[in-house]
Amino acid sequence: MVIVMEKHAAEEKIERVVAELIARGFDVHRSTGSDQTVLGVVGDVANVDTREFELFDGVQEVVRVSEPYKLTSRTFKRESSVIDARGVRIGGDEVVIMAGPCTIESEHQVFETARRVARAGARVLRGGAYKPRTSPYAFQGMGLDGLKILRAAGDECDMATVSEVMEISQIEGMLPYVDILQVGARNMQNFNLLAALGQVRKPVLLKRGMSATIQEWLLAAEYIMAGGNYDVILCERGIRTFETYTRNTLDISAIPVIHKLSHLPIIGDPSHASGRRNKVAPLARAIVAAGGDGVLIEVHYDPEKAVCDGPQSLYPEQFARLMDELRIIVPAVGRTI
Amino acid sequence: MVIVMEKHAAEEKIERVVAELIARGFDVHRSTGSDQTVLGVVGDVANVDTREFELFDGVQEVVRVSEPYKLTSRTFKRESSVIDARGVRIGGDEVVIMAGPCTIESEHQVFETARRVARAGARVLRGGAYKPRTSPYAFQGMGLDGLKILRAAGDECDMATVSEVMEISQIEGMLPYVDILQVGARNMQNFNLLAALGQVRKPVLLKRGMSATIQEWLLAAEYIMAGGNYDVILCERGIRTFETYTRNTLDISAIPVIHKLSHLPIIGDPSHASGRRNKVAPLARAIVAAGGDGVLIEVHYDPEKAVCDGPQSLYPEQFARLMDELRIIVPAVGRTI
Amino acid sequence: MVIVMEKHAAEEKIERVVAELIARGFDVHRSTGSDQTVLGVVGDVANVDTREFELFDGVQEVVRVSEPYKLTSRTFKRESSVIDARGVRIGGDEVVIMAGPCTIESEHQVFETARRVARAGARVLRGGAYKPRTSPYAFQGMGLDGLKILRAAGDECDMATVSEVMEISQIEGMLPYVDILQVGARNMQNFNLLAALGQVRKPVLLKRGMSATIQEWLLAAEYIMAGGNYDVILCERGIRTFETYTRNTLDISAIPVIHKLSHLPIIGDPSHASGRRNKVAPLARAIVAAGGDGVLIEVHYDPEKAVCDGPQSLYPEQFARLMDELRIIVPAVGRTI
Amino acid sequence: MVIVMEKHAAEEKIERVVAELIARGFDVHRSTGSDQTVLGVVGDVANVDTREFELFDGVQEVVRVSEPYKLTSRTFKRESSVIDARGVRIGGDEVVIMAGPCTIESEHQVFETARRVARAGARVLRGGAYKPRTSPYAFQGMGLDGLKILRAAGDECDMATVSEVMEISQIEGMLPYVDILQVGARNMQNFNLLAALGQVRKPVLLKRGMSATIQEWLLAAEYIMAGGNYDVILCERGIRTFETYTRNTLDISAIPVIHKLSHLPIIGDPSHASGRRNKVAPLARAIVAAGGDGVLIEVHYDPEKAVCDGPQSLYPEQFARLMDELRIIVPAVGRTI
Repeated sequence: MVIVMEKHAAEEKIERVVAELIARGFDVHRSTGSDQTVLGVVGDVANVDTREFELFDGVQEVVRVSEPYKLTSRTFKRESSVIDARGVRIGGDEVVIMAGPCTIESEHQVFETARRVARAGARVLRGGAYKPRTSPYAFQGMGLDGLKILRAAGDECDMATVSEVMEISQIEGMLPYVDILQVGARNMQNFNLLAALGQVRKPVLLKRGMSATIQEWLLAAEYIMAGGNYDVILCERGIRTFETYTRNTLDISAIPVIHKLSHLPIIGDPSHASGRRNKVAPLARAIVAAGGDGVLIEVHYDPEKAVCDGPQSLYPEQFARLMDELRIIVPAVGRTI
Repeated sequence: MVIVMEKHAAEEKIERVVAELIARGFDVHRSTGSDQTVLGVVGDVANVDTREFELFDGVQEVVRVSEPYKLTSRTFKRESSVIDARGVRIGGDEVVIMAGPCTIESEHQVFETARRVARAGARVLRGGAYKPRTSPYAFQGMGLDGLKILRAAGDECDMATVSEVMEISQIEGMLPYVDILQVGARNMQNFNLLAALGQVRKPVLLKRGMSATIQEWLLAAEYIMAGGNYDVILCERGIRTFETYTRNTLDISAIPVIHKLSHLPIIGDPSHASGRRNKVAPLARAIVAAGGDGVLIEVHYDPEKAVCDGPQSLYPEQFARLMDELRIIVPAVGRTI
Repeated sequence: MVIVMEKHAAEEKIERVVAELIARGFDVHRSTGSDQTVLGVVGDVANVDTREFELFDGVQEVVRVSEPYKLTSRTFKRESSVIDARGVRIGGDEVVIMAGPCTIESEHQVFETARRVARAGARVLRGGAYKPRTSPYAFQGMGLDGLKILRAAGDECDMATVSEVMEISQIEGMLPYVDILQVGARNMQNFNLLAALGQVRKPVLLKRGMSATIQEWLLAAEYIMAGGNYDVILCERGIRTFETYTRNTLDISAIPVIHKLSHLPIIGDPSHASGRRNKVAPLARAIVAAGGDGVLIEVHYDPEKAVCDGPQSLYPEQFARLMDELRIIVPAVGRTI
Repeated sequence: MVIVMEKHAAEEKIERVVAELIARGFDVHRSTGSDQTVLGVVGDVANVDTREFELFDGVQEVVRVSEPYKLTSRTFKRESSVIDARGVRIGGDEVVIMAGPCTIESEHQVFETARRVARAGARVLRGGAYKPRTSPYAFQGMGLDGLKILRAAGDECDMATVSEVMEISQIEGMLPYVDILQVGARNMQNFNLLAALGQVRKPVLLKRGMSATIQEWLLAAEYIMAGGNYDVILCERGIRTFETYTRNTLDISAIPVIHKLSHLPIIGDPSHASGRRNKVAPLARAIVAAGGDGVLIEVHYDPEKAVCDGPQSLYPEQFARLMDELRIIVPAVGRTI
């Protein structure tokens, strides 16, 4: 932490700040310029509220210089993490494609879709059984019955499975059926849920909150890791901005930024970011070209019939064509698919 | 719902859309202009995904014209709701001031603060026992022991109490001690929690999510009301914008907007919006001048000693001075305090 | 400027940074903690691009601690500036109300409106003669003919006048008719225009850009002041956020923030911020209650007939009622009206 | 335009709205449902302020259904525009790379950089002679002398040239030296400048404003085209959001969105979007993979020595490597480079 005193701050004001810092057990390093003094504070400042010092008379600015996250940081772990989900390795050489329907509707729908995406090259099968809906009057998902279907289809097609968990009480029941537990954007700061997932020994796919900064996102991952579960996969799915033409604004820059700050893998979700089928392929290609470790895509064997988010679901043939395009791109980022 | 066809769309394209609408049980009203056709769709369109129709050949635009929320709407209930919390009426003639510490730390702290704010005119005592912290390494609150202190101080000073609930499992235990259950900004779309609060028979204070639109906020209130709990108080606490000088941007316009769209009372939280003590009084005055039904303010008998958010807590004397200013303002909005 | 080195950065890396700083003529103050070194840099760092130092090996973070603006800063001038426009003093004890039509349409319209707002207590007459329109197909304003009407009406009613300048070439012609030159939000960073206004000896009313941070706004004011024109009035008119229910989000907190950072007066524009007549009065009251030095309001003697922005223009009776409400509020902020 | 009446609106209220519409010369198509009436309005509604009708008693909502832009729209021109700048065709099969220094500093610098980027495959040489600087105290550019250098280097290396115009008075002098006139983000709504560029017969590269919606951006292009200059190239350079880790948030989705709405070519600027050299290559690859018609990149033969934006300028070797990566990607989008 660095405390910048106002120009020509009286010596006694400076000393009052220094005294408080020492009283709290910090080492203080004082740097006196011709007209301004700066105090360097060394020690465990993670829990200090910098504003307390801003309010001292004579203080111009307080700057926190250490990152508040630890376990997620590349400073803590230099080499990139590779996370294993039933044999699928996320964060390694291979760009991993996760595909499937938004919502699990029926056995027929899941198996039909799973076979098509597996054949095209997807490695993880997605499908929602518990659905966060903004309206209380909308369909809320099939629950456990849906997850059993997902598991069976995943087994038949040799795919790992991923599905969203909304509530602590659902975790236990999901474990037999799901290889990756997904936390949705709206729950990114549901701290009780994050802490509970820290006790689980399965990978967690953590979506970025709609208005979460990259730092808040890493701190949410820290909640899970602090409990002992180190297998966190980050997923960029678009942030909320003033632009309303697209549902959200995919923050493509988050991919190189996360790779610099953290050792955790990051994938992208072009379906929720755009909300429209015809924008999904361009965004998926961009995610891979920017260096993403994977893509999470909604595909439905018959999107017209989808109960939810049909308009953003790809047709199986569109998905197969997209996979061909991604195969062209991956050598440009030194990856395989 | 209104479907606007492209200019000079072929008759067969129009008929295909009409056929689909009729198949789904809607009444269709067709309006044919010289070069463009518009279809008016009547029926229960609340669960229709408008994008499905956008994808029909020949469709230019689909516009949803009915509001997706019902119980929260002023169309549903013309007169403003007045909500009773242990005798304190929120949404009536009186502007209700809720004050107290951010976090419950000790008996001494809560009683000292409660006496000071009660004397100055506050009617509801606030204090957090379960704290949502962005970092897993920060203090997480005193829990039930804290709530007992809050209740005792509220009783002594004849104030109702408000405290935040973070998790379904906490609700039951909180009921004996808390008169208003607060839902924090980060949980505004924790739909399972909202649904559980719909089963409770105590007022809920619902903070606006950091990036929630007004419509999403009303839909979150709808979740609670759909369960049978009609006593929802909305609280504007600032939204996230590009401006970083203040912690959040208090959306002062939300006050007249909510009063137009909904019958629910709306209060403002100047402490979280600004994050700095010296901005709290200007914002509190603005909230009342804009027509807010109340203000939720952090006050600490000794802010330097606060374990959390001290820099945004008012000193008791500042709070008393602010109350005097608010008493000058209320006649301008036809209210009392 | 403060340069924070990475934990355990090698001594040679630190020395390389220090050498570069000294080569550029800065004084360097080094503070070495147990595991981290921080460099305090003293000298004229205003033109240094901090990112250059971020790219040095071993550097964790570079923090600029001196404010980039000078003349606008309260550090530069402690007492608040009071700006005189034809005898009306902005920034003093009196809260100054500026009112009039959005666009000058006719002699009748301007005189009718001016008389009504003057009688209710407005001190400055507003009216646009050059209009920035987002569509090239919309009405672009009456130009000089309009300004002559504005001047005549101002003279009759003993009011100062304010009107928007869009282009350097318009300045000269406007000077005889306009007491305050307004720079619109879209031109806040039209640096050539700002520099030209620095050469003028008339007050400039500088609206905040739709996505301008407070710092960028003050730097825009600095452009004008750097040319020798110190009479700048800031005007908050709403920023662009994700919320689309209102046209813009009035950043009410900007008022206390500007009062802390700068000696310049700040007023608010509730008409453009809300875009709807029924939101104007609540926002105007909030602006005054938050400590604003004035309010700029659109009033039309017959809003149904307005060629532009009629729906956000107040009726004269609404304006008179609002003035009464503001008279109740001003004592709460120690002002008169 | 569609006017939705409130449920059960009285017949006389509906008739009052209809009468006003007819009085203004519109055709009205009335669609009466069981409990709600919708009015379809046909005619030239481009200049109608929809809010005027919102204020009629009994009106629930007014929806404008026709796009406010015309010449930029794909409805107006189905096939994609290909724009010729001194033989370089933008918007055709080839993805066009524009590269060069941020600011023109010297003959040596421009020639050295131009030779390196030309050899690697760039087709257009960029370089700023007039610089919009947020601080009045920063370097403002070399002006015409700089443009002469740019022209000479472009001629030697057989490249077209692009440079920013800030002010109407600069246009005339720039024409002999510049093949594409660039309008910066801060001037995107400088309507006088746009109108003046409509009179020129050279391509204009129009950067998106920092907080401009896609619709406002297309309307800005419309200003230029309305004057008769149809050669507009759009350039996405990042928008302002709450995320501060990157300078701006590159809105990658804008590429497929513009391609759907408009026939104009769209390129991307990864240098300004990220503000950091190590993010430029990932974003450039993403722009091409998303279907962009070109990329505008800052390259400096020796970035450490750059007077401006050095930290976001690529080294020539980095640029050459990026070109190789882009050559791998282009077949995935059916393009060449």
